[in-house]
Amino acid sequence: MPGEFIQQKNAFESIQLKFTMKIKSLFCWIIAIAAGFPVNRLYAQKSNASVSIEKFGAKKDLGEDATEAVKNALLYIKQNKINKLVFPKGRYDFYPDQAAEKYIFTSNNDESLKRIIFLLSGFNNVEIDGQGASFIFHGYVSPFIIENSTGITLKNFSIDWERTFHSEGKIISVDNDGMELSFSEKFPYKIENGILVFRDNNKVEYPYGSLLEFDPVKHETAYMASDYYFGHGQAAKEISPGTVRLLAPGIKGTPGNVMVFNALKRLCSAITVADSRDLLFDSLNIYHCGGMGIVAQRSRDMEINHLTVTRSPGTGRVLSITADATHFVNCGGKLLIQNSLFENQMDDAANIHGIYVQVTKKFSATKVEVQLKHEQQLGFDFIRPGSKLELVHNTDMETYDTVTVKNVNRINKEYTQVTFTKPLPAQLVIGKDVLAAIDNYPEVTIRNCIIQKNRARGMLIGSRGKVLIENNTFHTSGAAILFEGDGSYWFEQAGVRDVTLRNNLFDNCNYGVWGNAVIQIGSGVQKEYRNISRYNRNIKIYNNIFNVFDPRLLNGYSVKGLSFSNNTINISEAYPNKFPGAKRFDLTDCADLKIDGL
Amino acid sequence: MPGEFIQQKNAFESIQLKFTMKIKSLFCWIIAIAAGFPVNRLYAQKSNASVSIEKFGAKKDLGEDATEAVKNALLYIKQNKINKLVFPKGRYDFYPDQAAEKYIFTSNNDESLKRIIFLLSGFNNVEIDGQGASFIFHGYVSPFIIENSTGITLKNFSIDWERTFHSEGKIISVDNDGMELSFSEKFPYKIENGILVFRDNNKVEYPYGSLLEFDPVKHETAYMASDYYFGHGQAAKEISPGTVRLLAPGIKGTPGNVMVFNALKRLCSAITVADSRDLLFDSLNIYHCGGMGIVAQRSRDMEINHLTVTRSPGTGRVLSITADATHFVNCGGKLLIQNSLFENQMDDAANIHGIYVQVTKKFSATKVEVQLKHEQQLGFDFIRPGSKLELVHNTDMETYDTVTVKNVNRINKEYTQVTFTKPLPAQLVIGKDVLAAIDNYPEVTIRNCIIQKNRARGMLIGSRGKVLIENNTFHTSGAAILFEGDGSYWFEQAGVRDVTLRNNLFDNCNYGVWGNAVIQIGSGVQKEYRNISRYNRNIKIYNNIFNVFDPRLLNGYSVKGLSFSNNTINISEAYPNKFPGAKRFDLTDCADLKIDGL
Repeated sequence: MPGEFIQQKNAFESIQLKFTMKIKSLFCWIIAIAAGFPVNRLYAQKSNASVSIEKFGAKKDLGEDATEAVKNALLYIKQNKINKLVFPKGRYDFYPDQAAEKYIFTSNNDESLKRIIFLLSGFNNVEIDGQGASFIFHGYVSPFIIENSTGITLKNFSIDWERTFHSEGKIISVDNDGMELSFSEKFPYKIENGILVFRDNNKVEYPYGSLLEFDPVKHETAYMASDYYFGHGQAAKEISPGTVRLLAPGIKGTPGNVMVFNALKRLCSAITVADSRDLLFDSLNIYHCGGMGIVAQRSRDMEINHLTVTRSPGTGRVLSITADATHFVNCGGKLLIQNSLFENQMDDAANIHGIYVQVTKKFSATKVEVQLKHEQQLGFDFIRPGSKLELVHNTDMETYDTVTVKNVNRINKEYTQVTFTKPLPAQLVIGKDVLAAIDNYPEVTIRNCIIQKNRARGMLIGSRGKVLIENNTFHTSGAAILFEGDGSYWFEQAGVRDVTLRNNLFDNCNYGVWGNAVIQIGSGVQKEYRNISRYNRNIKIYNNIFNVFDPRLLNGYSVKGLSFSNNTINISEAYPNKFPGAKRFDLTDCADLKIDGL
Repeated sequence: MPGEFIQQKNAFESIQLKFTMKIKSLFCWIIAIAAGFPVNRLYAQKSNASVSIEKFGAKKDLGEDATEAVKNALLYIKQNKINKLVFPKGRYDFYPDQAAEKYIFTSNNDESLKRIIFLLSGFNNVEIDGQGASFIFHGYVSPFIIENSTGITLKNFSIDWERTFHSEGKIISVDNDGMELSFSEKFPYKIENGILVFRDNNKVEYPYGSLLEFDPVKHETAYMASDYYFGHGQAAKEISPGTVRLLAPGIKGTPGNVMVFNALKRLCSAITVADSRDLLFDSLNIYHCGGMGIVAQRSRDMEINHLTVTRSPGTGRVLSITADATHFVNCGGKLLIQNSLFENQMDDAANIHGIYVQVTKKFSATKVEVQLKHEQQLGFDFIRPGSKLELVHNTDMETYDTVTVKNVNRINKEYTQVTFTKPLPAQLVIGKDVLAAIDNYPEVTIRNCIIQKNRARGMLIGSRGKVLIENNTFHTSGAAILFEGDGSYWFEQAGVRDVTLRNNLFDNCNYGVWGNAVIQIGSGVQKEYRNISRYNRNIKIYNNIFNVFDPRLLNGYSVKGLSFSNNTINISEAYPNKFPGAKRFDLTDCADLKIDGL
């Protein structure tokens, strides 16, 4: 049934595991304790002062809107310094009508005036325990926004939506002029002026921005399927109720597969965190949202444990959530992700990076104007008095100087004027060079996770802190691990300094179009600068198992310090090998390589 | 040339005038003085403390962005208590990049995070004198937003845009499957996934929401042309560069005429006023904007003098602005509009009304929840402690009780909880009844204006204050004067109490589809309640000239006190008479009628 809470281990049974979760979990704690990871610190906010949502009038399983009860409960908790809000197990529904309202900018998401159900703004030491509850959301709402808070725990509940932000249609036939699809009543639509429009039963619309083919038997993106992007919807006509012909010459697909019309915008991420610290997300199931599962910005010290991102049980959907499972921007402290399942979502399982702004004007030796360049970064105000920033040419992407911020004058969500404590160097190139923060990088541990069957990559690792990725299983359509970062297109700061990948199973990854190897060390270093740039550094890959159906295992450039040792490589026939002549290790413009078998 | 400042009298020469402007103007002053209208009070803010925009670095005629100069000038004016900002005559350009940013809710417009060029927030006694300058705006910007200010004068400049928010295409041919249009390079477009998309040369998009045919010879909407609404754009294909076939079976139009694709949203009105008083708009030319010319809400005491809304000279456009020329919501005090020209805009010349909210929940005898219902009214917060409100059934629309507000708790832009000083009456119908403010109604004078060749009506008169409309010339495609108001669809409070229409020329109005008579006294009073409701009262119509090509002169219901006397009616053949059997006076469910010739 939609939104029913399922146990973590049931979801995990969908893939063959080498260890049982219990052994994995035990192993993880041993490692954690051995590594001196302060696992207990995160649980310190637990308290005996507890209150039930029932006290505020919420009743489970009746379909009533529990939003006002949540608002009153949060107010009560804040005023009375209560530490715990409990939901008796059951279904709770949340609608936009009574929700709080705030204009929210979240990096890599779409800004908007949002309706927020759980708005935790300025909260300290609060745990929300769903006790196995399922939270069902309706329409354009943001379930959780946590900002300027410390010591927040969310645990034991699931998040799902009554009507998804994306829509799914089964391919009936394909020809030169387009494709015929059938839609179930779960994805109401209309043809307006010759254009396919998705909506719900209350005529609320669900615009789409891209189309991707999924294999509903394997529950993954179809082999080598590409995204088909829409600017403004798709010309179409209705053949009969529920059957639609897309007027899209050249579109490809296999009858029986499912086409996913993904949400145009990322407006309703499940859990958004900003400017907060000491957070624990434990035993959460995110079955759907119109954005990311957990996205955190300018925050530090976070643990994600037993998070399940998967398609909603019993609904027949092929997609879980419409963007990344987790995403961290300009975060610091310790970031631990463990014992989690990330599958069927429309983008990466984890993406960790900073943000570059472009220097667009120079007012004086110490004062410049900078611009946030990517549309989904607008309003990401990370430059504050005292911030330490690196100066970078967008050609080689290497830090050529560091500066300290004295004053900041925000013009609007796009432009900011910044004054520094010292004159800027002569080599500053206006309109090209970028700046990024270097105060904080998270120390990342990702372990005992399963990452599979989603669109795009497993993990984008862009932290300059210590990164350990171990005991995970990857079966991703793109690269399992991608190192990225550029100052020309996405404007995402990356460039690792110390990464260990060990004891992972890379199980037939890269069966889609979103990678050129299982492990891909790319970046936006421009071609003619790759021989001088060492943007990514010190990557150790050992004791992993690679099941591969094509040769492309490791691709990289501009790396200093890369070792690949004691890994097991098994040749598989899981998918057709479309790259028979390709190199297993395609490494150029690198230094200090130690590659077994190269 | 686009944006060139033209003299008011030149624009006026486009219609045959009975009096010269000088005589009209003289006449107006005599009337004003005779009526004791405090014309001098509005000019009291004039001062000798003046500063030129040049002081802040703005240079005319160079195409440079003058936005930052304006921001700095406004800051300087506020800090130094300067009363006048002067622009040496010339062209000034304004771009979004350096503009201030604020989320703005304006009634009958579309809410958004706006980029604002002249943000006058909390200003007192300031005059901005363009001295004949032309202000050219680029992209999604709001030229003027005046809020919480007193004594503001804007004078002697024109407003235009480099790329319009609407687009215009000339009809080449029409057949059963659609229509072929040609677009000039001023309206760049693209076909994306089979859908027509308008944009500018920087790929900024200009979505459209409706299509209307204009006669480029008569410079007005084509005879009896109807709006053709788009939910999400129109399926189309390109025949050759600049020539597009709309795939719109059944669409009608005459080759040689121009189809206007109107802006989907009203995001960039030229001048927006909120919570302000004592305002003068003098000798302004508004050639274009993506919304209304002047829109004011919750404000009082305003004069508009020598305002010209017309199509931009030299551009060949058929449309001026994309919505109403002027619009006043919940305003009070004295409202004077005189010596002005309103033509070629996409909606009414003037619309004056209040707002009804629906009562959606009853918490106690004194506390209810109310909802702003229309999408373009969201965030219109007019209920404040001490506000006097009327209670109205949405059936007969008559006031059945009045209440005073004690407390207000805003939930979000849609819902507000309101507590009153006394228990609400028993006849309150939850989910049906509406509330509106009765503290303020403007005393309206509209004189010596020309209102012509726009889509829809001349004036929607919904003030319960004294209204005088005299010495105007109307040649409107819909009703010249419409009395409206309803609590079920638009939720606009109206219901006049004392209106005089005298000495006007109604010159072949109602040649389009937006009216059922030259003067139309309608409302949302439900059919079975019209015989008991007297929603509009005391309307006197005398000494006017009506040139009419069909019989439908006066239509009304639920009116008490209506006189029509000493008017001249001339039968014309200006347009085909499609209603030969219709009544001249179609009045039902009225009381106290005095109609010459009935």
